[in-house]
Amino acid sequence: MKNLFFLFAFAVFSITLTAQNDEDIIKSIYSNSLTDGMSYHWLDHLSNQIGGRLSGSLNAEKAVEYTKTELEKLGLDKVWLQPVMVPRWVRGAPEYAYIQTEPGKTTEVNICALGGSIATPGAGVLGNVIEVKGIDELKALGREKVEGKIVFYNRPMQADLINTFSAYGGCVDQRYSGAMEAGKLGAVGVIVRSMNLRIDDLPHTGAMSYGDLPIKQRIPSAAISTKDAELLSDMLKLSPDLEFFFRQHCQQLADVQSYNVIGEITGSEFPDEFMVVGGHLDSWDLGDGSHDDGAGCVQSMDVLRLLKNSGIKPKRSIRVVLFMNEENGMRGGNKYAEVAKQKGENHVFALESDSGGFTPRGFSFDCDDASFNKISEWASLFKPYLIHYFEKGGSGADIGPLKKDGMILAGLRPDSQRYFDHHHASNDTFDAVNKRELELGAATMTSLIYLIDKYGTSTISNTPELKN
Amino acid sequence: MKNLFFLFAFAVFSITLTAQNDEDIIKSIYSNSLTDGMSYHWLDHLSNQIGGRLSGSLNAEKAVEYTKTELEKLGLDKVWLQPVMVPRWVRGAPEYAYIQTEPGKTTEVNICALGGSIATPGAGVLGNVIEVKGIDELKALGREKVEGKIVFYNRPMQADLINTFSAYGGCVDQRYSGAMEAGKLGAVGVIVRSMNLRIDDLPHTGAMSYGDLPIKQRIPSAAISTKDAELLSDMLKLSPDLEFFFRQHCQQLADVQSYNVIGEITGSEFPDEFMVVGGHLDSWDLGDGSHDDGAGCVQSMDVLRLLKNSGIKPKRSIRVVLFMNEENGMRGGNKYAEVAKQKGENHVFALESDSGGFTPRGFSFDCDDASFNKISEWASLFKPYLIHYFEKGGSGADIGPLKKDGMILAGLRPDSQRYFDHHHASNDTFDAVNKRELELGAATMTSLIYLIDKYGTSTISNTPELKN
Repeated sequence: MKNLFFLFAFAVFSITLTAQNDEDIIKSIYSNSLTDGMSYHWLDHLSNQIGGRLSGSLNAEKAVEYTKTELEKLGLDKVWLQPVMVPRWVRGAPEYAYIQTEPGKTTEVNICALGGSIATPGAGVLGNVIEVKGIDELKALGREKVEGKIVFYNRPMQADLINTFSAYGGCVDQRYSGAMEAGKLGAVGVIVRSMNLRIDDLPHTGAMSYGDLPIKQRIPSAAISTKDAELLSDMLKLSPDLEFFFRQHCQQLADVQSYNVIGEITGSEFPDEFMVVGGHLDSWDLGDGSHDDGAGCVQSMDVLRLLKNSGIKPKRSIRVVLFMNEENGMRGGNKYAEVAKQKGENHVFALESDSGGFTPRGFSFDCDDASFNKISEWASLFKPYLIHYFEKGGSGADIGPLKKDGMILAGLRPDSQRYFDHHHASNDTFDAVNKRELELGAATMTSLIYLIDKYGTSTISNTPELKN
Repeated sequence: MKNLFFLFAFAVFSITLTAQNDEDIIKSIYSNSLTDGMSYHWLDHLSNQIGGRLSGSLNAEKAVEYTKTELEKLGLDKVWLQPVMVPRWVRGAPEYAYIQTEPGKTTEVNICALGGSIATPGAGVLGNVIEVKGIDELKALGREKVEGKIVFYNRPMQADLINTFSAYGGCVDQRYSGAMEAGKLGAVGVIVRSMNLRIDDLPHTGAMSYGDLPIKQRIPSAAISTKDAELLSDMLKLSPDLEFFFRQHCQQLADVQSYNVIGEITGSEFPDEFMVVGGHLDSWDLGDGSHDDGAGCVQSMDVLRLLKNSGIKPKRSIRVVLFMNEENGMRGGNKYAEVAKQKGENHVFALESDSGGFTPRGFSFDCDDASFNKISEWASLFKPYLIHYFEKGGSGADIGPLKKDGMILAGLRPDSQRYFDHHHASNDTFDAVNKRELELGAATMTSLIYLIDKYGTSTISNTPELKN
């Protein structure tokens, strides 16, 4: 009886000790990130010394070199570049556009070419405008009303959705497929309202696609600022016959060699089980890509540094992967998954940060219910850091191709309110990132990786201690 | 038996219906705020048409007039001004300061007078510097080492505290009491490191007090930017005998007449039970007081508008109170409580928003456990809006004087990471406020007031329906 009591007391003591350790370790991760973090310093360099990093650009190449060098300084077990061919689209000379109500009476407006669009003819495109709220409305109008016109997609993001990514998801088909659909009906150009919840002067670029549309049906496509979209819509009500002019010089060049940047801490017990943390190193060209996705890259780099600094020796191999070409091709994410499959690498977990460097609120998880339930039990460990959001849902574009049964994919979920003020626009710049918010994100990611590595889940090996 | 079944079914149906209604009503409050809110518009005027609103200033007077006029447009039951005499401290000509390592070899630094400080002599103050980390260290040094010197308080905010208000609370004694304590020991001036977690060039003002120190012991006191505080500290290590010069022209003038601005929706069932929602209309003079506390004022105004727009007829009387003089005197909050007591008004609830217009995370409550537990049960209603923080704690400075047994005091708790980047500094400006974050705060406040008014708490009358 006495022995049994001691056994029981020891068990309680052990559990308490373990719980205490987790709290202390997570506290040290957050403290280290907030007082001695590297993410803001790295982002300063990526944003202010390098700048926008569109795939195939010189800046993208510089970013590969810089981040590889910085990872090498961390004393990881391996750092390497994974070759991947990427598309190269260039904007060329600045775009120009105006609304013309009668010859000589014009109002300049702010546009930018969408990524992947063709140029206008050198002299530009001038045409009447047909405003629609979406692709369905365009199709209902039919060729007769669309042919020879400039199609103006003007469905705004829905302001009363709390998650602004949902509002984005409800609009982005206009940008991605708008030109393809309008081209089929004989339009001569497409203008899309910027995916932005604010009313301001900044046009927001982003990927578009012509699908397999014949080249002769492909038409130039540009984003217009939200303020000018409102203006154009108002002016169309007064002057339905007004004309819109725009000129852009972008072009798609031949693919070029680029790289995913990878660093690894090799696991001490399960070196053949891989956990990935990453963001994408490429960005659009208008700003410097601080939020999208410089933030996710430097946070992911700092995860490995914070693990080391906190004295954590992961059981599994932890890789930071800075993916190339998320924005206009997804080549990096696909290549990483392809190579992992070829090599038979067992990826058990992947976490992406690609929603901006804002205050972290939690994670969304793409995994089985049992693993999700286990992860949710750790919520109390995150409560002191105001991390409260643990939901099933999507993860990240770059890690998506890794998906397979039994694997856990996760996405960091920062506060989303300001994200689309900056997304793909010229104000996605370093000054829009708050140091503490960025660092809290890095600490939150590190803490999750620490816990999953330590305890496993329903699909990931549990630790020997917990098995015994 | 059959009757019993129907009774049971009806009861379940009623409960479901009520819950559904709350969800719908709260959804309509959020939607209305995000798509048709007035708070951002009002803040634009307060910040950009009026500007900083230090108590006793012309701008403060303009703000009283403007907000009264806007409340009158809402069709409330009553709108009035409550007279209150306020102190009037003026900054005068811009401050000037430098570090001098040898005669003629100077480095200019950024300072601002602390609110309530006296001026330097017209020619300024020049003296050797003694750096301390706080008042205790100063006292330990004693008169011998302090007399004739300029005391430099340089204890930084603690970066690894997640709630930045805790970090502020751990430092602000240097600003508030630093000059009083240094004056007692014969110092000739005080320089305080700005209460700011960033390293930047902006000095942050704020209230200081000489307590009942004799006038001849009162010494001028200024804040120095964090970057210049680091510089001064580094230079002192190299040149302990360097001198610091500063000049400021501030003065305390006679009290002037001002007002709290009050609007009321009179309760339909318990008109003699009052619920207050408010912020403070005065601000410091360096910026335009957008976050501190223009945001809280316009959110509070919008609470009454959102209640009306959502078709809610409160059972209790709901008052918006825009308090005057929170920053340097608390006269408005004290006056409101004094008048309430004189009139025997039964205040059952008060909510203040004075922590910036950032994404709301929840509330802290100063109340009995039973009421807190009841309020906590509503957490699931807030979950769709990512409002997760319900904790016991402080409320707000202006509503504090109302405190009495049985009353519930609450403070809106927005994300705190960026607050002290702007607090009391020249960058507390309109552009630092995100429209959606502001509007989410207004909706969150409105939803809490709706629920407390509808259901009561352990200390507030419950509704007839729930009583029966």
